[in-house]
Amino acid sequence: MKGASAITVEDFNALIREELPFAWEQGFRVERLVAGEATVRLPVDQAHLRPGGTVSGPAMMGLADYTMYALVLSRIGRVKMAVTTNLNANFLRLPAPRDLIAEGRLLKLGKRLAYGEVTIFSQGEDDPVCHVTSTYSLPPRGD
Amino acid sequence: MKGASAITVEDFNALIREELPFAWEQGFRVERLVAGEATVRLPVDQAHLRPGGTVSGPAMMGLADYTMYALVLSRIGRVKMAVTTNLNANFLRLPAPRDLIAEGRLLKLGKRLAYGEVTIFSQGEDDPVCHVTSTYSLPPRGD
Amino acid sequence: MKGASAITVEDFNALIREELPFAWEQGFRVERLVAGEATVRLPVDQAHLRPGGTVSGPAMMGLADYTMYALVLSRIGRVKMAVTTNLNANFLRLPAPRDLIAEGRLLKLGKRLAYGEVTIFSQGEDDPVCHVTSTYSLPPRGD
Amino acid sequence: MKGASAITVEDFNALIREELPFAWEQGFRVERLVAGEATVRLPVDQAHLRPGGTVSGPAMMGLADYTMYALVLSRIGRVKMAVTTNLNANFLRLPAPRDLIAEGRLLKLGKRLAYGEVTIFSQGEDDPVCHVTSTYSLPPRGD
Repeated sequence: MKGASAITVEDFNALIREELPFAWEQGFRVERLVAGEATVRLPVDQAHLRPGGTVSGPAMMGLADYTMYALVLSRIGRVKMAVTTNLNANFLRLPAPRDLIAEGRLLKLGKRLAYGEVTIFSQGEDDPVCHVTSTYSLPPRGD
Repeated sequence: MKGASAITVEDFNALIREELPFAWEQGFRVERLVAGEATVRLPVDQAHLRPGGTVSGPAMMGLADYTMYALVLSRIGRVKMAVTTNLNANFLRLPAPRDLIAEGRLLKLGKRLAYGEVTIFSQGEDDPVCHVTSTYSLPPRGD
Repeated sequence: MKGASAITVEDFNALIREELPFAWEQGFRVERLVAGEATVRLPVDQAHLRPGGTVSGPAMMGLADYTMYALVLSRIGRVKMAVTTNLNANFLRLPAPRDLIAEGRLLKLGKRLAYGEVTIFSQGEDDPVCHVTSTYSLPPRGD
Repeated sequence: MKGASAITVEDFNALIREELPFAWEQGFRVERLVAGEATVRLPVDQAHLRPGGTVSGPAMMGLADYTMYALVLSRIGRVKMAVTTNLNANFLRLPAPRDLIAEGRLLKLGKRLAYGEVTIFSQGEDDPVCHVTSTYSLPPRGD
């Protein structure tokens, strides 16, 4: 599925700032975007930390959802109406109080549904803290 | 599974304020708590709204996770170390820009795992906007 | 969602025998079918039993899938092309070596997707042995 | 996670034949087993085919469950009491009427839970037909 993304990182960021400002304010930042693959960072600060210094589950689910949206747009370009229909998160380890790195990969892009997986790591560690699969429903398009 | 909750709403709220202040600030409020069942409200304001006036997916997943935590504590009392291992959210309809009401029900309380479901409604509507299943891992206890 | 089913039990059985004979041979039998709700029995014999006398996980997943198909057809009538896109099974207790009873309920019927839940019991017991959620993709139709 | 498997393919096969004969009769065959990774084949014959010549969903879920069991035993050795607690299957494409190849990978091995993913392909094709995530509950052990 590799190849140039159908949307640039700059255009994706601009879309988020305009259309989903609350997501932009969460701090998610796309670091890499090719067709069907994305890397997204969540800079972790106090607002995302639970007691004991770990990142909250909802923050990780938000990061995964954001990454899936980038994955979908990397294949079909700027589409506002793609919506999440399923997000299944498995929490594997308590994350360290460091930035989270999400690695996403699209496994299917159909006419009506897109499906992918997102693996989340604490920066600098090998074992994932969270593994997410997700389905998006796509608006009708010309293909 | 019905019967008196193993934790009162007041004690649950106090636990959240002390231990999970960021969750308290999200505005989730337990309205009903019996053993194995809970109703939780998310008063919806601008911060939770997406463009078009609907509530964001991560806000609904946070509400479901909060409801599951209340369900678990309704059976085993004040336990800080219960952690989410799985949260599977299915988004069924776009929510209205109104308060969300989560109705939770525990389907299993084992020695090591608890499992339940949470159905989320826009206030005053019959058809659910989101359906969540979730598993919590429980700390060793005396039973 | 209650009301008369869009397909009778007899027509559903005939459809399965003709189109999905391997499912018919599993022994699944619809016992109740109204619009959006179904009860399906799996008579348990030696072929479904694991050592220790419990029913195998795949047999329960097959029962849940069959129940979802009945739920979908209870609302839209005889449609061959509905296909499962997701089936999420949570195994809660080891089933007894007795018939399994699946209680299904449709939570959404959209234009393109149907979503429901199936709770499976060992006959005569109150606590479920398995809880399944599932999504079907629907063929384009005239409504 | 790579390294020698804690159980040989021969010992795994022997365990299945003795303890889970109905699974052995399904025809699943482990082709590769290292610590935390497995390849399992389902030779497809008429019994697994749906009308139109594709493999049934329950057959794919059975294959995924079998692969997860091999993954778990590849790390902890011969343990009869590991049980599936969750299996989440996403059906991505209709499989061809050819053998199915399952590629499994363990993402977590904890004291009480193991979690992994299984990607299923029609032999000779690049795009997966099914993607499964699954959790096993492990018996207490000495580590």
